Amino acid sequence: MSEVRISLEAARDLATRVLVRHRTAEHNARSVALALVAAEADGQKGHGLSRLPAYAAQAASGKVDGFAVPTVMARALAALRIDAAAGFAFPALDLARTELPALAARSGIAAAGILHSHHFGQAGYHVERLAELGLIGLVFGNSPKAIAPWGGSQGLFGTNPIAFAAPRRGAPPLVIDLSLSKVARGKVMVAADRGEPIPEGWALDAHGQPTTDPKAALEGTMVPMGDAKGAALVMMVEILAAALTGANFGFEASSFFSADGQPPGVGQFVIALDPAVFSGGAFDDRLKRLIEAMLAQPGVRLPGGRRLTARARAEAEGIAIPEALNDALLGLG
Amino acid sequence: MSEVRISLEAARDLATRVLVRHRTAEHNARSVALALVAAEADGQKGHGLSRLPAYAAQAASGKVDGFAVPTVMARALAALRIDAAAGFAFPALDLARTELPALAARSGIAAAGILHSHHFGQAGYHVERLAELGLIGLVFGNSPKAIAPWGGSQGLFGTNPIAFAAPRRGAPPLVIDLSLSKVARGKVMVAADRGEPIPEGWALDAHGQPTTDPKAALEGTMVPMGDAKGAALVMMVEILAAALTGANFGFEASSFFSADGQPPGVGQFVIALDPAVFSGGAFDDRLKRLIEAMLAQPGVRLPGGRRLTARARAEAEGIAIPEALNDALLGLG
Repeated sequence: MSEVRISLEAARDLATRVLVRHRTAEHNARSVALALVAAEADGQKGHGLSRLPAYAAQAASGKVDGFAVPTVMARALAALRIDAAAGFAFPALDLARTELPALAARSGIAAAGILHSHHFGQAGYHVERLAELGLIGLVFGNSPKAIAPWGGSQGLFGTNPIAFAAPRRGAPPLVIDLSLSKVARGKVMVAADRGEPIPEGWALDAHGQPTTDPKAALEGTMVPMGDAKGAALVMMVEILAAALTGANFGFEASSFFSADGQPPGVGQFVIALDPAVFSGGAFDDRLKRLIEAMLAQPGVRLPGGRRLTARARAEAEGIAIPEALNDALLGLG
Repeated sequence: MSEVRISLEAARDLATRVLVRHRTAEHNARSVALALVAAEADGQKGHGLSRLPAYAAQAASGKVDGFAVPTVMARALAALRIDAAAGFAFPALDLARTELPALAARSGIAAAGILHSHHFGQAGYHVERLAELGLIGLVFGNSPKAIAPWGGSQGLFGTNPIAFAAPRRGAPPLVIDLSLSKVARGKVMVAADRGEPIPEGWALDAHGQPTTDPKAALEGTMVPMGDAKGAALVMMVEILAAALTGANFGFEASSFFSADGQPPGVGQFVIALDPAVFSGGAFDDRLKRLIEAMLAQPGVRLPGGRRLTARARAEAEGIAIPEALNDALLGLG
């Protein structure tokens, strides 16, 4: 598959242009473009520019309101309830990231729940921005149904990512970012395209039985990482991101890909902590000590290391995208 | 193995008496007794009365200060830093649970970090108390080293439990409580005692290689639930419970069992959220909807169900403990 290499700036401009031409306000388009290109640069292509044609189609059909203005519906001293207003998720998460640092500085901890939201991409992106400001960030998001409750056979929960970021003195933030399915559904799709079996333990068929047939898996559900324990975490994330925010559950949410139907209306929950308050100023030294102890063992790498390597290369050399995607985006933009 | 059945009240009194006779203040002893007997009643015997002889020995040797008075070292509007003062963990967690509800009611979210702490038992116990007050609770704790960083061979992290509880209208709180090792280390000990192999995937030997030999496993490390993804969560909990609070890391902490050496000095981090603020009052109905959708599938049970069944039976019939443990406790008390 032939690829085209373009600079990050050109990719952001192209992505912005594509959305603006599909019924999206310039500042919203820019917010989405920044996040998608950041994911692309980090090697997280599943949350990168490959999403853009579907995003543009959803803005064009009105399933996503490209002109939505996210608003703070309610607030307490350290809490925000944010309405993403059926727009893209990124402007609503930008609002949370803009408001939370002042609240966390005053209160020690603060949180924002977001409803009427959409795909929030690379979960770590949002908390990494908080960590760049010296805060610890945690985010939980739900997504359209893909995982069954443990013991069941029908998808109810999304793959429900958790991301965590912590500031490091003299180094980029530590970012932990994981979806709670054992493997990404995309891997099953690739196996189905190739006609290859998948390993047992990845997925269940529509009857809740383990399967190695990727087609049966696509009609069934994904197995959570950590099996029964992971299923409990999936439920916890569904409660924080959706029951707590008032957003749609995974089983109520429409697709993040199709341009048809109602908005998915999923939710996100973001927590920001000021480590200075809780640690008495010791946090930076303590985290450094932990990381040194980890890296003293041969074979150990920090979470997020590959992401930073990919990012450095993308900043120097730009990103490589499939020629077909590039052509499609040029056509759309 | 012959067992003795005693009432919960008699068990609490006995446990209190054992600790008071081993250099522990009455109110601290009572706090520990309540938690250990609650774990015993819930069928969580690994965090129940079996711990009491080791607790008493640690209080007697001074490794745990039974007369410690936990204090709030620092506070912000929604944040507490609590010094467990090398005492038992439970009085410090009681202090957090006493202070957090008012902060969460005012701020929407509040948190307490605890350092100089000890084994905090059944993690769900602490957040269940918050949920009984209408709050969502989250707690993270670290523990002495048992899990290696992913790719490594030496234990650095504890099994690092996460617990979550949410209030339910007309039903006991939903409690999710999991340690992050794939299986409890106690299961490996049982296999070693019986001379039976353990399944591959539970543990690594001292060289970081998978092993089915329980003795090699006990000299090695436990595998995290969810493998590499779980290892990232283990690190996240270590950062929240220890780096953030200023507590000892798992690899710095002494045993929770031996009466020798320095205090373990581990940490806990507790978050309390007011669902009313974030959900605009919709939380109870939304959680009910989610639980109904889960239970509509054959074969699905809620997390914590077995615990509630065991508790109801213990309340009616008392708890059954091994005769040898009962004799030991009577001797100590």
